[in-house]
Formats: sequence, C-alpha cells, structure tokens
Amino acid sequence: MPIFFYLCGLLKSEEVKKVKDRLFLVTNDDGVHAKGLKTLIDIVRKMGKLYVVAPQESQSGMSHAITVKTPIRIRKVMQENDCFVFSCNGTPVDCIKLALNKLLDRRPDMIISGINHGSNSSASIVYSGTMAAAIEGCINGIPSIGLSLLDYSPDADFSGIVRHVENIIHRALENGIPQGTCLNVNFPVNHSGEIKGIKICRQTKGLWVEEFDQRTDPQNRTYFWLTGDFINQEPEADDTDEWALHNNYISIVPVHPDLTSYKALPQLKKWKFN
Amino acid sequence: MPIFFYLCGLLKSEEVKKVKDRLFLVTNDDGVHAKGLKTLIDIVRKMGKLYVVAPQESQSGMSHAITVKTPIRIRKVMQENDCFVFSCNGTPVDCIKLALNKLLDRRPDMIISGINHGSNSSASIVYSGTMAAAIEGCINGIPSIGLSLLDYSPDADFSGIVRHVENIIHRALENGIPQGTCLNVNFPVNHSGEIKGIKICRQTKGLWVEEFDQRTDPQNRTYFWLTGDFINQEPEADDTDEWALHNNYISIVPVHPDLTSYKALPQLKKWKFN
Repeated sequence: MPIFFYLCGLLKSEEVKKVKDRLFLVTNDDGVHAKGLKTLIDIVRKMGKLYVVAPQESQSGMSHAITVKTPIRIRKVMQENDCFVFSCNGTPVDCIKLALNKLLDRRPDMIISGINHGSNSSASIVYSGTMAAAIEGCINGIPSIGLSLLDYSPDADFSGIVRHVENIIHRALENGIPQGTCLNVNFPVNHSGEIKGIKICRQTKGLWVEEFDQRTDPQNRTYFWLTGDFINQEPEADDTDEWALHNNYISIVPVHPDLTSYKALPQLKKWKFN
Repeated sequence: MPIFFYLCGLLKSEEVKKVKDRLFLVTNDDGVHAKGLKTLIDIVRKMGKLYVVAPQESQSGMSHAITVKTPIRIRKVMQENDCFVFSCNGTPVDCIKLALNKLLDRRPDMIISGINHGSNSSASIVYSGTMAAAIEGCINGIPSIGLSLLDYSPDADFSGIVRHVENIIHRALENGIPQGTCLNVNFPVNHSGEIKGIKICRQTKGLWVEEFDQRTDPQNRTYFWLTGDFINQEPEADDTDEWALHNNYISIVPVHPDLTSYKALPQLKKWKFN
C-alpha cells in the first residue's frame, strides 16, 4: 500500500476513535426547543458523544444567575444513540453545574452554548445566559464556546452558518482554547454566502440605553416593560466585535472571568485612606 | 477672624452645599428589608439626597439578570426628607435601569449597592446581584461601588464596618473612581476593631465546586438543591482579594465590564481557519 493511502487510512481510523472518545456538553438560554439548539445538536453529535442539558423554557437575559431559592429538576427529553437530551427548570448556569456534578461520568472535552437567537457581542455579554454558561465552563477549566447569530427571530435561518460553526469547533479542538478563557463567537445575519471571514476581536465598549415602556393594567396600576437600544461607544475602532459583525465578519472574542481592571490598580493604590 | 477658622467655616459651608447637591442611588440584592441595606441607607443619607430602589424580595445569585418576560413594577416604601425608598419586583440590575430611566431627574453622582450579606470576592462576583448593580452603573458611566460583608446571616452585625464604609465612600467622592471601573469592596467578618486596613487587590482565581443535594419529593420525583464550597486556586498569592480578607484586611478590587482576555488575542490570531 502506498504510504499516502496508508496514512489516510490511519488518520481516518484515528479520527473515528477521537469521535468515539469525545464527550460534549451543550446548553443554551433560549430553551430546549429552540431552533438554534437543534442546529447545534445536529452539528455536534457527529463529533462525539453528546449530552444536552438545556432550560425547559427561555432563560434569555438571565446572565450568570443560579437558582438557590427553588429546587432544580431535570427531565430526559430524548436519547438517540450517543446523544442524550435533558431539560432543566433552572438557568443555563444551573444546567452546566448540574450536568458536571450529577449527569456526566467524566469531565466533557468541550462545552458549547447556543446557538443563541440574537447577538451577544459588546455589552450584551454581561446579560447573556448563553455566554454565562460558556464562562461557567471556563471557570471549571473546561474548553468552552458560546455561539450567537445576530437574528432574534425564533425562526432564524441557521443554515448559512453551519459550516462556519463546524470549522470553529474543529479549530478549537485542534488548537486548544487558550487556558483560562472561553470564546464568544457571534455570526452576522447577512450570511447568504457573504461572510467575509473570521476576525479575532476585543469586546466593544458599548451599552444598552433603556426606554421603559410604561403601561397601566386593568386594575389601574402602572407597570413597565424593559426595552432598549444598543449604543456603540467606539464605532470607529476596527478591532472590536461590533466592527467585525457590522462589516460581515464572524467575531471571536476570547473571554475570561477575571473582572479586575489591572489598569486602575496603580491609581487606586494612591488613595489615602484615613 | 483668623484665617484658619475662616477656612474651616468655608469648608464646612462648602461641604453643606456639596451634601445638598449630591444625589445617590442605592440598591442591593438581599431585598428592600435587609439589614445591610438599612445600614447603608443610614450611612448614605447623611451624605446627600438618596434614592433607594431595591428588590422587594431577595435576588441573591441573580447576577446581571434582567427581566424581559414579566412586567416590572415599583412601589414607594418610604419617604423621609431627602431619602426616598422604593421596592421593585425585578432584579438588582432592573432596579438600576428603572431608577436611571424613570425615577431620577438627573444622573446620580454615585451608585452604591449593598451592603451584601456574604462575600462577593473572587469568582463569587459573577453570580452576585450586588456587584451586577454596581457594574451596570459603571457601564452607564456612573461612579459605582458594591459593598459586601463576609457574613451570610440575615442578622449580620454591620456596626463594626460603618466607619470604614463612610471612609471608602468619602475617598471615592474625593478622588473619583477610575474611569470605566467600579469598586468591589469586601469586608472581613472578624471586624471587632481588628481590621488591619484596606488592600487594593486583584480578583482571586477560584471557583465554587458544587455538591448538589439530591432529594425525593412526596410525589416520588427527584429534585436538587444547589450547594457548594469555594476553592481558592491561588492561596499563596498575596495580592488577591481572598488573601486580603483571610488576613483581616478590607479588599477593594477595581472591576470593569470588559471581559476580553487581551493576553489570549495573539494566540487565537495564529489559528488557521479553513
């Protein structure tokens, strides 16, 4: 057998072994029935054994919340070959904690959260349950990725980004995610073959400016709905996730759970306390 | 009048003017009836006009969650001179957003969150509603401080830290909090005159390791309570908040909402995407 074909055969069987040995944990914040989760399950189940533990209902905007006042319950929704799907009445972070502690018999090789319906770039990361799940994985020392598409619709079309998601997961498995970090990956919406590529970015400085919708209920009591608009505070900077997405690139931001502002330390150390 | 007394009088009247002009916004995550909040109100109301918007019930562990699926309501609980107290059915971050958008007629000079019953040092910051409120203030460009005492008891004794809280708020007003950051201040429990001082620190690398408490309800269904123990992953490092608190110092960590791991950017930029 020529060496080339021999090597190909060897690589292929190694890849089969790898797939058999790999264990993935998947969650999201849009809930177990979300289209983005189904898309992700279809992608990841081909890469290894898969446990999905996802909120039974939408937990959008739940950030890194954990459930401490009510009991947490899980329910098996589906099992098909090496793919196990559970729903949980808790938050995305509860899902990760419960899976790691009670469901999996070993640490997963990777945690993937999403695919979120809507952006988690810039300041949105701090409100995001999707990214909180990835950050929780990172805190636990497990390679973790959060994936989001810039389309809030429950019927969002994920078909155009499937190959990019596969590509990013494969590169992460191959290279290893830098220690102490997880990845915040956002996909632009205008993705019908037009994605220009992938940009490694920093988080844009920005904020959501609220416009509370004030209403009166039938009992004549005032109530509010939270609405808002995102403001990019550095629209000119070309190394940010917002710039990349606006220019039809996929953005990848390496994220860590250390919130220390190292730049501010020397200034604070000058304060004279009585 | 000797110059010294003249200056004293001048400073005093300037201070009175400052107090009259200052506007504070206070919240917490333990709820509007918490002892820590009452302690903070008593401290801050002497320093200026005060609006308190706090959750009507405990929102501990709610992190940066926002309420998007249910209407938000507020209720005036108390008004006494220049101190206004409201309760809100939302999260600590909802409280800040609603106050800034619907209650206050101008931006507050400072947002203070707490005093939390329990530590928000190290990894606990990502789960903390108290610190999320301060971070939300910071995102909005308002000088913000989160305060926590390392005592989870609802009856925790805050008396020993009152003068330290006053000192820190005064220094923050005087020096200005470094732009783009807020302060995560934690007070050790062993505070009966023994606090050694204040340390400016970085966030300790650590995590909560869960031990879910598995039980069976009367309908024979399994449920879980989240419990856990904190693990300090760098107990030897002497520049961390955990070290400071363990050694009976008050810890102050400057915190920013940029989660980018700048250290990881060059490594990621080497990845070869297909």
